[in-house]
Amino acid sequence: MSKKEEVSLSVIRRLPRYYRFLGELLSYGMIRISSRELSEKMNITASQIRQDLNCFGGFGQQGYGYNIKELHEEISKILGLDNKIKTVLIGAGNLGKAVANHMDFSNRGFDLIGIFDKNDKIVGKKIKDIQVLHTDNIKDFCNDYKPKVAILCIPKIATEEISNILIASGVKGFWNFSHYDLLGINSDIVVENVHMSDSLMTLSYLVKDIDI
Amino acid sequence: MSKKEEVSLSVIRRLPRYYRFLGELLSYGMIRISSRELSEKMNITASQIRQDLNCFGGFGQQGYGYNIKELHEEISKILGLDNKIKTVLIGAGNLGKAVANHMDFSNRGFDLIGIFDKNDKIVGKKIKDIQVLHTDNIKDFCNDYKPKVAILCIPKIATEEISNILIASGVKGFWNFSHYDLLGINSDIVVENVHMSDSLMTLSYLVKDIDI
Repeated sequence: MSKKEEVSLSVIRRLPRYYRFLGELLSYGMIRISSRELSEKMNITASQIRQDLNCFGGFGQQGYGYNIKELHEEISKILGLDNKIKTVLIGAGNLGKAVANHMDFSNRGFDLIGIFDKNDKIVGKKIKDIQVLHTDNIKDFCNDYKPKVAILCIPKIATEEISNILIASGVKGFWNFSHYDLLGINSDIVVENVHMSDSLMTLSYLVKDIDI
Repeated sequence: MSKKEEVSLSVIRRLPRYYRFLGELLSYGMIRISSRELSEKMNITASQIRQDLNCFGGFGQQGYGYNIKELHEEISKILGLDNKIKTVLIGAGNLGKAVANHMDFSNRGFDLIGIFDKNDKIVGKKIKDIQVLHTDNIKDFCNDYKPKVAILCIPKIATEEISNILIASGVKGFWNFSHYDLLGINSDIVVENVHMSDSLMTLSYLVKDIDI
């Protein structure tokens, strides 16, 4: 973990996948696994696995493989999944509602404390026991409760204004489902984009020459 | 386009982003752009842009930059966005409903022709003018309508059985929101995964050491 500064984002992006696979192995009652076995299951080379995990100090023992539970817990710590980072969700339309209902925030490092929408038909309703507030209240809410992360499920056109309010109110991290380029406006924040539309276009490319 | 075989997936994954940016520039009425200007807007180096676009034959003209409309159209062709690939959506819970309502399939190369769920409360309802059918009908539907792509918005536990039915029925491409590792079972298919949970865990890592 001391090596964090040097760890590339591509390694980080593989950690959740390790975490998922190891969790699965645990649920099967497995105790140890070699990097070779893990490699076969995950379709990553064994040397890549060793290299990735060495970025954080190395966990395996030559000839004994990895203790699955230990490694699973270590990765959880590295990813910060035990944190309870106060988080707000902006936009409770179809997508926002799905994100709120579908994601297991509390086991992923987040505590969802507020949901906002500007549609009067949605404001006042409850999603996951949280009453949806009007977006006009974002600033006051942030002053009172100090969320540090915001999930943006709003159209691109609304994102600039809303994100400026959030950043001015102390929000530092964004899970961005909009197509607005948040990093263009501020380099002091961290942004994880989910560009579903880009993913769909990539699939379009991948399937277009299949025998159809 | 003749060079497709050699084009790496990382280049392909950048094309949707070019497509979005160029579409935006078009909507502002812009006609030409240099790779340097595009580079500044997209936060990619100009040489990366030239290199990426050269994979498909190269579009720019030394000293004149790119014709935005032409490049936008070319990328659309490369990605196959004008295709109408018959597509089914499996799972019409929160996430499936959001995906159905939120995505612009017809401008991304797909034609959504069927939606399936196993929940009797959802079966029979309409989403985007498509009546949700019971998952028991997938096989017959595939025989009749021959969809080539399936979107999986079902829990991991259901994915193996359903994807086997789909593959046996001729489905070749998957947009996979489940955590099931589809490529493990069949290498003749193409899979584009959207691991929202992995993305959330990555954000957890990114924000955990921010001054909070």
